[in-house]
Amino acid sequence: MKNFSQWFHNILEEAEIIDSRYPIKGMNVWLPKGFKIRKYVLRELERLMDEDHDEILFPLLIPETELAKEGIHVKGFEEEVYWVTHGGMRELNEKLAIRPTSETAIYPMFALWIRSHIDLPIKIYQTVNTMRYETKHTRPLIRVREITTFTESHTVHEKYDEANDQVQEGIAIYKRFFDSLAIPYLIHDRPSWDKFPGADYTFAFDTLMKDGKTLQIATVHNLSDTFAKTFDIKYEATDGSHKYPYQTCYGLSDRVIASLIAIHGDEKGLVLPPLVAPIQIMIVPIVFKDKSEEILSKASEIKNILEKDGFRVNIDNRDIRPGKKYYDWELNGIPLRIDIGPRDLKDNKMIITRRDTSTKEECSLSEDFPSILNSYLTEINSNLKDKAWKFMREHISKIDSLDRIEKTVLNGNIGLIKWCGNDDCGKEIEEKTNLTILGIQYRIDGDCINCKRKAKHVISIAKTY
Amino acid sequence: MKNFSQWFHNILEEAEIIDSRYPIKGMNVWLPKGFKIRKYVLRELERLMDEDHDEILFPLLIPETELAKEGIHVKGFEEEVYWVTHGGMRELNEKLAIRPTSETAIYPMFALWIRSHIDLPIKIYQTVNTMRYETKHTRPLIRVREITTFTESHTVHEKYDEANDQVQEGIAIYKRFFDSLAIPYLIHDRPSWDKFPGADYTFAFDTLMKDGKTLQIATVHNLSDTFAKTFDIKYEATDGSHKYPYQTCYGLSDRVIASLIAIHGDEKGLVLPPLVAPIQIMIVPIVFKDKSEEILSKASEIKNILEKDGFRVNIDNRDIRPGKKYYDWELNGIPLRIDIGPRDLKDNKMIITRRDTSTKEECSLSEDFPSILNSYLTEINSNLKDKAWKFMREHISKIDSLDRIEKTVLNGNIGLIKWCGNDDCGKEIEEKTNLTILGIQYRIDGDCINCKRKAKHVISIAKTY
Repeated sequence: MKNFSQWFHNILEEAEIIDSRYPIKGMNVWLPKGFKIRKYVLRELERLMDEDHDEILFPLLIPETELAKEGIHVKGFEEEVYWVTHGGMRELNEKLAIRPTSETAIYPMFALWIRSHIDLPIKIYQTVNTMRYETKHTRPLIRVREITTFTESHTVHEKYDEANDQVQEGIAIYKRFFDSLAIPYLIHDRPSWDKFPGADYTFAFDTLMKDGKTLQIATVHNLSDTFAKTFDIKYEATDGSHKYPYQTCYGLSDRVIASLIAIHGDEKGLVLPPLVAPIQIMIVPIVFKDKSEEILSKASEIKNILEKDGFRVNIDNRDIRPGKKYYDWELNGIPLRIDIGPRDLKDNKMIITRRDTSTKEECSLSEDFPSILNSYLTEINSNLKDKAWKFMREHISKIDSLDRIEKTVLNGNIGLIKWCGNDDCGKEIEEKTNLTILGIQYRIDGDCINCKRKAKHVISIAKTY
Repeated sequence: MKNFSQWFHNILEEAEIIDSRYPIKGMNVWLPKGFKIRKYVLRELERLMDEDHDEILFPLLIPETELAKEGIHVKGFEEEVYWVTHGGMRELNEKLAIRPTSETAIYPMFALWIRSHIDLPIKIYQTVNTMRYETKHTRPLIRVREITTFTESHTVHEKYDEANDQVQEGIAIYKRFFDSLAIPYLIHDRPSWDKFPGADYTFAFDTLMKDGKTLQIATVHNLSDTFAKTFDIKYEATDGSHKYPYQTCYGLSDRVIASLIAIHGDEKGLVLPPLVAPIQIMIVPIVFKDKSEEILSKASEIKNILEKDGFRVNIDNRDIRPGKKYYDWELNGIPLRIDIGPRDLKDNKMIITRRDTSTKEECSLSEDFPSILNSYLTEINSNLKDKAWKFMREHISKIDSLDRIEKTVLNGNIGLIKWCGNDDCGKEIEEKTNLTILGIQYRIDGDCINCKRKAKHVISIAKTY
């Protein structure tokens, strides 16, 4: 893709996902078509979260005193917090922060809720809007000032090991989620200087955009007992002693939808994974004067049968040329199109076109066509997944020499390099290359690419959003 | 109910709907059980809205210049707007309002979206959090500073008459919605001094709480072309001329859930209409040592059969006394409880207890019990509806003399009085009685209760939240 940035901007506009002309920079309007995709994406995420978390909803605003309690945390966010200072004509007694994330809103309540070990574990999540005063160049869904769709989870446990296990559970949920959207990912143990403010350690999911930049699409943090101590969250253990519990938090945002669009889309427009396509099958009746009634009634019949089987299906009976219809539904990324014309009617068949491959197949209407269509949808999902993973894998490049990092990465690749694990050396690598270390992929022998001491880790390095 | 206010406060806490201990007054936390009720309420509302509206999502913040454009509108809200003045450490160039409602966020975009008559009508809605800096005494779900669940609709039409029709469509949707929740309502044409700031006229839905105060639970407004003129929204008509379109807006909030809880609840706790009960049927196995396995397996069998039929059902197999279980599920308002013990197992039957009437019925397991349970749920809904409407109707009282208004109303009634339609006279009635005129119920002959001129309307007068 020659100009990914321009393509991404255009597709959001043409497929009517987002209107970025709202009169505040970095804050955008979800249009009906975009909103529907968002809805199905959230539905899948909620289904996975609900297996082992309770959904709750906390207030938007956080008192300054609460936000400021955890020193490292507030330092990480103080440059990006929007402050509410007035109610009506009056100045408020205390400034209120619009949540940049909800740790400091939720944890004071945890201190009230948690009394005993029988109250643990707690596993909750919420989907909310949050705000960050971004000073960098904003871009819809990727770098925004209002994150409209932040799904954040917060858990509390008796033991540190249970928090470790929960981090792995969070990672497992997100893997299932991204797999269902056919989005490829690398999981990185973020370097210490890039972990969540206040966290013990941070794992992040990164994916690769078509312009060779990586996009962080989810993070999972072990908070240890840092916040518990700050917010005085304590539980009575079985032996009667009072202890600080251990916490995790993990979250993802609108960027999931950005990557969904960016990774699968092509020059014709969106290509939606069937699970989140608001319409999975579009029926286009090819109408001629004398046969029109018969064809429309057959189209309705097919639609009814498919809807009964749970497909999301629609008929495009607008009075315009079929070519214009094809154009629209390709742009909108509908996974399957069914054409049915006078000749098909005679032969009792229909033509099925796949959005992902543009291939056409005849399908007899006397066969069990819902199960045939269902297997097409399954194939589309696995084809999208294979293609996307292949693209990402082909753009991961092992690099043995510092000199070659910048060129390889700027050529659209994620670099894999050996690193000693020393923070100063890591920051030096970033400075020398003007790139970002994503974190540890795995541990290994060899020499550090920079300081030549014994390497402990293989780390990814990339140009990031 | 002796002390409705205390009862309402307690039930929110005991049934774990809302935690009101959040450290900002008037901003509350939705707990898991409350959130689930909210989810099913929203699901029904969205189902109705989606029939003829597109769901969208607008930003939280509104530039001061946009909010201030419509003079009457801003005057109505300026005392209650929260203002964002700083991003990080910097003062913003322009103050940003947290939306008190979204007209001034949405309508500048309408000006971009609407070009021609073929772009009309537009019918959109969104469910968002909004803020109002309430100076009055706050109360969870009823009078809050963060309205967490504001579902607002906005429509645009070519003709004034179409906007009138849309007002009626909005009213029709809300009627269906409240009927499905068994919430009774009166629809009032609000007096001119109490209409939505900027509206031509306002219809409101009011319901009656058990302490005799009315609660406004929905409003529907005809905005005429006032906002179109302010925001320069124009369309090209078929004759080529450029015209201002006509608009409506309508919305409802968390108060729907407040009235759901307050109207149906009793001394034992919540009583939930089956449509929005997160669990509709709770199975309580009465376990004795030797038969426990058989009973639990029968309970699972019943659960599976019911789930296949679409019921939301659960088994309470906690190791505690049945009495404690009954207490919990009554408190949580589960519509139906199934008890099954060793003797029932022998007789191949179960005992069904209704939450609304506390009546118990035997039901043979060899019968088609899912359809029997389904008819119980239907009966519960109509019983709740009948009871609630009866209560409200019994507390509407025709009043012929000014002297008797205050006493009748403060006795827990909505007063129906004759009114000439003159604004000054209406305000005088409010002042004399210290009550609120809800608006016109219907038109009639007779004399005004206050000024004795010819009455035009029968209006409701009440003590309101």
